[in-house]
Amino acid sequence: MSSFVASPLCGLTLAQLGADVIRVDPIGGAADIKRWPLTDGHNGAPAGTSIYWTGLNKGKRSVTTDLKSAEGQSLVQRMVVESGPGGGILVTNAGGRDWMSHATLAALRPDVITLELVGGTDGSPGVDYTVNAGLGFPMITGPTQHAGVVNHVLPAWDVACGLYASLVITAAVRRRDQTGQGARIRLALEDVALSIASTLGYLTEPQVNSHGRRGTGNDVYGTYGTDFVTSDGGRIMIVALTQRHFGDLVDITGTAEAVAALENALKVDFSSEAARFIQRDTLTALFARWFAEHTTAEVEQALKTTSVLYQRYRTFDDVAAGGGLSAHPLFETLEQPGVGTFLAAGMPAAFDGEHYFTGPAEELGSSTSP
Amino acid sequence: MSSFVASPLCGLTLAQLGADVIRVDPIGGAADIKRWPLTDGHNGAPAGTSIYWTGLNKGKRSVTTDLKSAEGQSLVQRMVVESGPGGGILVTNAGGRDWMSHATLAALRPDVITLELVGGTDGSPGVDYTVNAGLGFPMITGPTQHAGVVNHVLPAWDVACGLYASLVITAAVRRRDQTGQGARIRLALEDVALSIASTLGYLTEPQVNSHGRRGTGNDVYGTYGTDFVTSDGGRIMIVALTQRHFGDLVDITGTAEAVAALENALKVDFSSEAARFIQRDTLTALFARWFAEHTTAEVEQALKTTSVLYQRYRTFDDVAAGGGLSAHPLFETLEQPGVGTFLAAGMPAAFDGEHYFTGPAEELGSSTSP
Repeated sequence: MSSFVASPLCGLTLAQLGADVIRVDPIGGAADIKRWPLTDGHNGAPAGTSIYWTGLNKGKRSVTTDLKSAEGQSLVQRMVVESGPGGGILVTNAGGRDWMSHATLAALRPDVITLELVGGTDGSPGVDYTVNAGLGFPMITGPTQHAGVVNHVLPAWDVACGLYASLVITAAVRRRDQTGQGARIRLALEDVALSIASTLGYLTEPQVNSHGRRGTGNDVYGTYGTDFVTSDGGRIMIVALTQRHFGDLVDITGTAEAVAALENALKVDFSSEAARFIQRDTLTALFARWFAEHTTAEVEQALKTTSVLYQRYRTFDDVAAGGGLSAHPLFETLEQPGVGTFLAAGMPAAFDGEHYFTGPAEELGSSTSP
Repeated sequence: MSSFVASPLCGLTLAQLGADVIRVDPIGGAADIKRWPLTDGHNGAPAGTSIYWTGLNKGKRSVTTDLKSAEGQSLVQRMVVESGPGGGILVTNAGGRDWMSHATLAALRPDVITLELVGGTDGSPGVDYTVNAGLGFPMITGPTQHAGVVNHVLPAWDVACGLYASLVITAAVRRRDQTGQGARIRLALEDVALSIASTLGYLTEPQVNSHGRRGTGNDVYGTYGTDFVTSDGGRIMIVALTQRHFGDLVDITGTAEAVAALENALKVDFSSEAARFIQRDTLTALFARWFAEHTTAEVEQALKTTSVLYQRYRTFDDVAAGGGLSAHPLFETLEQPGVGTFLAAGMPAAFDGEHYFTGPAEELGSSTSP
């Protein structure tokens, strides 16, 4: 009983770890069945299949039923409670229904594990983009001279929420193995975001310091890292965390004398990460000339010989182009009905060198019993 | 043996779930011991304590030792292999050392579980910002007229990597409970990012469609959602996923006639999510007038009565201001030596209504045996 990102990602992740996962939808599918991106017919597969839905529902069986009917509700209950000793698990972002509440299911199977995903802490609706707006990140993202807010593109809170969900299900299953005890778990997308923002210090700073974090554009906070433009318009992200990284960056850009003169004149010590961050604009201006005078290929060639952390900015097309993923151990060919044949990633963790993969997403309703 | 974000977040998350976690560092601390943000002395606590380090290492014991000495290495080995039946777990982002390799530890304890976190798939160094640059997201983030790239501020891949790490450790522990088998796990930050980008379709689009995702600024892709400015300069994120949300937005902005006229003239049907996305610029221009003519308070008051998903953009200071977190069940008062007393979040998932909390971070080296 899952839709959109977080709840389906939980099911997919558990499927990658070997679980038998069934996604239950109303007849015709949930609100995400035609969610963009859709196939555009470019590769001969039919246009209009949701790449989003099929991507998030790989390796699951699909059952549809009339969730408003007593028969449909009873079917869902039986699927949860009669699913064997390792089963008895319900994950849903469509909670608040008595017929599939923890209490109802626990009356039928005392060791049931339920996980209800909600938006706001108070159970109010909320999605990644509203949660993120409320939390501070869009206020400090993007060019510092940009007056507006900048939303993230990656639904990072949905992703974190889906991973927390798969973690707490796994932890609850282990506890049940040991004690026989079920679990009633609730996870709010807003709480995921608040917890991470607290742990990373963003919500601690305004409580203990004079103010919270301000924007630093593309500069990495508290160390030396930023992006440069090359002579052919390429962009390169550079991160110099350690003194060695920084020394190599100074060497390669031929700025050793200028940097030393700056240290003297400003009475700062660039062996300190903090000093490198505080003086970053001046340092960046010094380094930028070298990048602007070399092509992307020359820059990459030169950086390769150093300890500096760097990466050319690429588009998604760049990443997928030239069969670059075909030799990648994380990717396997997937034949997804309605989408075509492409390389799809498995579980990022490798167990004894092996990534776990699932099959494609089942077509909606394929596993519904006649 | 963890530093920076991903590996320490794994340990913190397992500590929140009840694990006894010991962070081992070289004498004097790892490279992240003074990582910004630091306390600024504003609240009477000493200036210069890392809010970052203490935040990520809550609830762990801290042991320091000379990792280059045989004694130090032997101590770490013994801590892993002699840690009781539920122990025998090593998580590290400082792998590649023979004395703490999986093979070495498995020779001492066959059921040991090791997790090595690396940067690039090939084991090359890589951090969140370089991985992200290589993957496509900064190319499509930020205002569409902005020529440059926009880095995310939240280290989303580090966070996802830390959560995957805690998941696979938990899954490996459960397997060991059942089979007695240990596990050698490897997790690359780059693979985390590639896997999520694949699952969400970003790496599938360029393989099966005519091109990969293009930027849409603050507009949510494939549906109707964007940000508006109010008469007093507030900013509000609006998401209208369903026809009902959209109808309410049209009603509240008093644009029903204009929207209907547009539907007729353009021969589109706004009951389709896709049509709302395709025509979003025109719709946004229509709706924007109502937002510009009302204060933030008026806008929030009006939206409250509708189904529309909305959220005012806030700063981190706004979130922490006015004691708003003190009544929040996810937050508890934490006394963190060196930082002061503040509200810190626990595990976002609630088990039977209860969030799990840890104590503060131990001072570096506090649990080192004399």
